Amino acid sequence: MTQKAQIGVTGLAVMGRNLARNFARHGHTVAVHNRSYSRTKELVEEFGHEGTFLPAESAEDFVASLERPRRVVIMVKAGAPTDAVIDEFAPLLEEGDMLIDAGNAHYADTRRREAALRERGLHFVGTGVSGGEEGALHGPSIMPGGSKESYEALGPLLEDISAKVDGVPCCVHVGPDGAGHFVKMVHNGIEYADMQLIAEAYDLLRRAGGHEPAEIAEIFRGWNEGRLGSYLIEITAEVLSHVDAATGKPFVDVVVDAAEQKGTGRWTVQSALDLGVPVSGIAEAVFARALSGGTDVRKAAVEAGLPGPSPTGGEADLKDAVEQALFASKIVAYAQGFQQIQAASAEYGWDIDPGATARIWRAGCIIRAKFLNHITEAYQRNPQLPTLLVDDYFLAAVSGAQDAWRRVVALAATQGIPAPGFSSALAYYDGLRAERLPAALVQGQRDFFGAHTYERVDRDGKFHTLWAAEGRAEVAS
Amino acid sequence: MTQKAQIGVTGLAVMGRNLARNFARHGHTVAVHNRSYSRTKELVEEFGHEGTFLPAESAEDFVASLERPRRVVIMVKAGAPTDAVIDEFAPLLEEGDMLIDAGNAHYADTRRREAALRERGLHFVGTGVSGGEEGALHGPSIMPGGSKESYEALGPLLEDISAKVDGVPCCVHVGPDGAGHFVKMVHNGIEYADMQLIAEAYDLLRRAGGHEPAEIAEIFRGWNEGRLGSYLIEITAEVLSHVDAATGKPFVDVVVDAAEQKGTGRWTVQSALDLGVPVSGIAEAVFARALSGGTDVRKAAVEAGLPGPSPTGGEADLKDAVEQALFASKIVAYAQGFQQIQAASAEYGWDIDPGATARIWRAGCIIRAKFLNHITEAYQRNPQLPTLLVDDYFLAAVSGAQDAWRRVVALAATQGIPAPGFSSALAYYDGLRAERLPAALVQGQRDFFGAHTYERVDRDGKFHTLWAAEGRAEVAS
Repeated sequence: MTQKAQIGVTGLAVMGRNLARNFARHGHTVAVHNRSYSRTKELVEEFGHEGTFLPAESAEDFVASLERPRRVVIMVKAGAPTDAVIDEFAPLLEEGDMLIDAGNAHYADTRRREAALRERGLHFVGTGVSGGEEGALHGPSIMPGGSKESYEALGPLLEDISAKVDGVPCCVHVGPDGAGHFVKMVHNGIEYADMQLIAEAYDLLRRAGGHEPAEIAEIFRGWNEGRLGSYLIEITAEVLSHVDAATGKPFVDVVVDAAEQKGTGRWTVQSALDLGVPVSGIAEAVFARALSGGTDVRKAAVEAGLPGPSPTGGEADLKDAVEQALFASKIVAYAQGFQQIQAASAEYGWDIDPGATARIWRAGCIIRAKFLNHITEAYQRNPQLPTLLVDDYFLAAVSGAQDAWRRVVALAATQGIPAPGFSSALAYYDGLRAERLPAALVQGQRDFFGAHTYERVDRDGKFHTLWAAEGRAEVAS
Repeated sequence: MTQKAQIGVTGLAVMGRNLARNFARHGHTVAVHNRSYSRTKELVEEFGHEGTFLPAESAEDFVASLERPRRVVIMVKAGAPTDAVIDEFAPLLEEGDMLIDAGNAHYADTRRREAALRERGLHFVGTGVSGGEEGALHGPSIMPGGSKESYEALGPLLEDISAKVDGVPCCVHVGPDGAGHFVKMVHNGIEYADMQLIAEAYDLLRRAGGHEPAEIAEIFRGWNEGRLGSYLIEITAEVLSHVDAATGKPFVDVVVDAAEQKGTGRWTVQSALDLGVPVSGIAEAVFARALSGGTDVRKAAVEAGLPGPSPTGGEADLKDAVEQALFASKIVAYAQGFQQIQAASAEYGWDIDPGATARIWRAGCIIRAKFLNHITEAYQRNPQLPTLLVDDYFLAAVSGAQDAWRRVVALAATQGIPAPGFSSALAYYDGLRAERLPAALVQGQRDFFGAHTYERVDRDGKFHTLWAAEGRAEVAS
């Protein structure tokens, strides 16, 4: 083999294939490799005309086809598959060669891998790549970590294929070892928050403003021209203006309002907790998705009729109103904690009796309170209680408290007194009792930019809308 | 040695010593052991009259003094010290013997240890113990995990020394392996939420209600007679009514308003994220503490003069108000995310350029937006910016948006539309700009129940109030 490749890509599922094509389209000779050779052949057959690909059947041939220092982009699933590919290739590489993990690894894994490979004289470059399939092909935002030395040899190629703004590449050497994957993780965490905030804006415009989805789409189109202008605002307008062909209804109304998630939003919050940085906006977004997906709990809440605001909230003095807000918020906090205990009990097979747990907290411990008797009794009445809020006692308590609770949260907001606990508890309560959540919009956004699919309210299955195609047909997935 | 002990305690710092004394006071013969023998001697010299202690100098003597099956309570620091003690004692034990970890272990560690020791025929009982030093001596709430078999041999002794309510012990077999430590962790998470909610109630009564701490103490005393009656409400009244002897001011006003934390609240939220359970109340409490402790960021926010509510908020239509709320909340989410990037960069030595990060997100990725230019410019103006909120552009943006933002959050609360993102962002904003936070009350509570100490606003050092003593003297710590 005389011709050598500047870069190689192993793992040719859609993301890896599109990255390889992007390199080839920019005039680089690209070695390509996949565990099963058929995918490699397919790539060359279908897209060979776009540039120069050197298909390799074995890892050895792949490595041999690369110029030194070798640049090997790994595009496989995060976790064990990434370690397996590293274990396969590292022994074939020589000092100064580079392994580039372009998958969605946790930055702690990237730190571990970088340290291990550095000892063997290899560069390991954990690289965030954002923009999905389309971005990978036409220009992603690229966030490489790793050594400065590796960026000197690799950066120009990455900058070449990255998105550009006024000619400036959306690629920079973020920092050593896990820095690239860390920044990609926070990017995704912010994305969660962005999407949740947009969903809340939509919900308010619809429920408090009385606007229909098509009207709200126009509002978002207007906002997109102003300071809020962004890809997410733009696609929100697209999703909200889309009409479901099967029913003639607004698309957002036929989507099941349970927002799904992969790991990066969760990772962002977990890392922020370790670092002691309050990322409450990202956390609320992650929890809003978890709440929307808690079908059993939401169903129980709706069936129990957790009450919404009374038409005329009676006046109460501040002291009494704060007592009501405190009591209602406390019930929410305990309901959440006990739900966590039940989830862990199911996850780990512990068979925990939540009522007995409340009982042994009645004395000796810091949260001891008479209140706990009611929790024990609630689980005696129904050991499978999906949430304490639907137990008769707590339902009655919250029903009596909620008008005052609402006034206190509104007062705190209006007077500028921080009440994160009271207000998040109320938002949780209102989320739980909502018959429809704007999570349906989030699912629409996710399907739009990531083909993540959605469920429909009117028939089973997973669906995907061909957003970029004329007519925007819906396909079963 | 002819007399055998029913139970042994190794690790005789205050918690271990008090547990050992509690067993002895209940008529059990207690073997006691400590890494340094002087502490063992001290215990027997000072408290030998309370019961029967068998002091052991070596691990071997300690184990030999226990009746079979042996019950060895480990009361050392969580983490490596616990593993070290297990490694020391496990080889000395025989099939069916029990190692009981009464420390604050993470439940995942407990699961790992239980599995490893089960293979060697030993019972490992991870046990939550709540109630602090006083509880350990006079009756804690005890949450043992581990096998049913181990509970049969151990449970009666634990129930004996536990707190009682109407004769019912505050001790129950929670479930296998890590279940006990898990439930203890959630207990602490709920405790975080409880304390934060109480702090918010205090803050509202003071700032919106105009009540002085002594008056609020009376309000809490009244509440303690009602459905809120609990240890935390009770000690809140004590803390709020306490007057600082040195200054004559309310104690809560001389305490530095930066609430500290150990790991369990954080662990609770991290676990809930893995389990997909929305524990937003606990998360907001943990983040409220992190925010209160972020001295540099808070100082910058106060100095920049992040504005509070205007006396007369101009009227705006809902659409415009929601746009303002969305924009302001978005700024908060990005400010939080970038703060996390800066914290990680410092923690891991990454030297990340946050402005460059914003720049490469302007295209290619999902959160691409014009908005990001302002972030790049903000970090160009000041690479050490503690939070985006104090940059001129963002400060002006938030100043213009905040009245509408407040109205939208109040509207959502009043109309029952869940807005966790908008409201938590506003609470974060108001928290950041607050000159004093009710975190000072939280520090007072922590000092009351756990002797965790506090700082004063008027002189350096760590202080502890002798809450149980006449006159409640303050001692330097």
